[in-house]
Amino acid sequence: MKLPTSPLQLVSHYFQRGYFPLNAQEAEALAAYCTRRQIKRRQLLLQTGEICRHVYFVVAGCLRLYAVDTGGKAHNLQFAVENEWLSDLASFYAEQPSGVFIEALESTSVLQISHDDLLDLFVRFHKFDRNFRILIERQYLQLQDRLLQSISTPAEARYRAFLAQYPHWAARLPNTQIAAYLGITPEFLSKIRRDQASAHRRQP
Amino acid sequence: MKLPTSPLQLVSHYFQRGYFPLNAQEAEALAAYCTRRQIKRRQLLLQTGEICRHVYFVVAGCLRLYAVDTGGKAHNLQFAVENEWLSDLASFYAEQPSGVFIEALESTSVLQISHDDLLDLFVRFHKFDRNFRILIERQYLQLQDRLLQSISTPAEARYRAFLAQYPHWAARLPNTQIAAYLGITPEFLSKIRRDQASAHRRQP
Repeated sequence: MKLPTSPLQLVSHYFQRGYFPLNAQEAEALAAYCTRRQIKRRQLLLQTGEICRHVYFVVAGCLRLYAVDTGGKAHNLQFAVENEWLSDLASFYAEQPSGVFIEALESTSVLQISHDDLLDLFVRFHKFDRNFRILIERQYLQLQDRLLQSISTPAEARYRAFLAQYPHWAARLPNTQIAAYLGITPEFLSKIRRDQASAHRRQP
Repeated sequence: MKLPTSPLQLVSHYFQRGYFPLNAQEAEALAAYCTRRQIKRRQLLLQTGEICRHVYFVVAGCLRLYAVDTGGKAHNLQFAVENEWLSDLASFYAEQPSGVFIEALESTSVLQISHDDLLDLFVRFHKFDRNFRILIERQYLQLQDRLLQSISTPAEARYRAFLAQYPHWAARLPNTQIAAYLGITPEFLSKIRRDQASAHRRQP
């Protein structure tokens, strides 16, 4: 099988695996609404108070969606690397000022689709409503899993679950970002890593 | 306006408010797939290990979806009262054994739709894919909000947010259920309630 090379082929390929595949007409319509954008490392795609005007599909690189609490502490709600979607849906659909930030953790290339264009795809093609329903259902289940862990599971076990569930994130994210996702300090995460490494060494 | 009286009218009415309204053909198809079911207080609709075969629409009463951790402690992930939906979507869509429980906290009347019937509605009518996409997007945003609170907000503030956001749940749920939702002990919740009541009395 020839691997997709263009970003637009990537999105079609994305829906081909695990979703309802797009036909030529649907893929063409989607392609017409995708705009390529390059974001520098540490650049913000969204700040609180701004309206999130796009959904983003990561072609290369890494984004994070985070909130800052009243004490000034950042909490990572979501990451997105290659072939993953990210947006502040609350702001995007309601066209209301956002309460979160979206930042590029690496030099990142995305395809963005605007609010009006996505809604137009939903109106014109049943397939997009269906595929985005399935997409958000899967994200919902991941989030429910994470909420359950955050209220019922000690930090060590949460870190182990993170490694098992998201190895592709764990491998490239700095300690500080993983800690801000798990709701612990980077120092405590380092301690967990040391403890797990030494427990591993003690095993026969 | 005449208020809906039959459960099937209720579901149509539900989509009428805040969703894309069903036409006669869609409402009829939905009605044909809805089965009325009565559940006694404390009765389980789902246990871990069973496959969740239905989505539930609450006509009257109250359901909770909860998980039990390795220490035997129950954590409430979701409640549903009148005009709210509940299901273990992970088990429902994958047709895999569930890891959670669904219990009736009151004598409850639901409409249930089976897996195959819901998928048939999705195939036959664009509208259902769209409305259920919007439904799950809204639940996703509530969950993201709750996750953010659970990792960044002290228990007192989480309880205040719960009262503000879900007054219709707070008014009818016992202390123990709210505590198991907020991730605190019932004793600590009682203390928060006493503190807030006495702070309120001190105000001029």
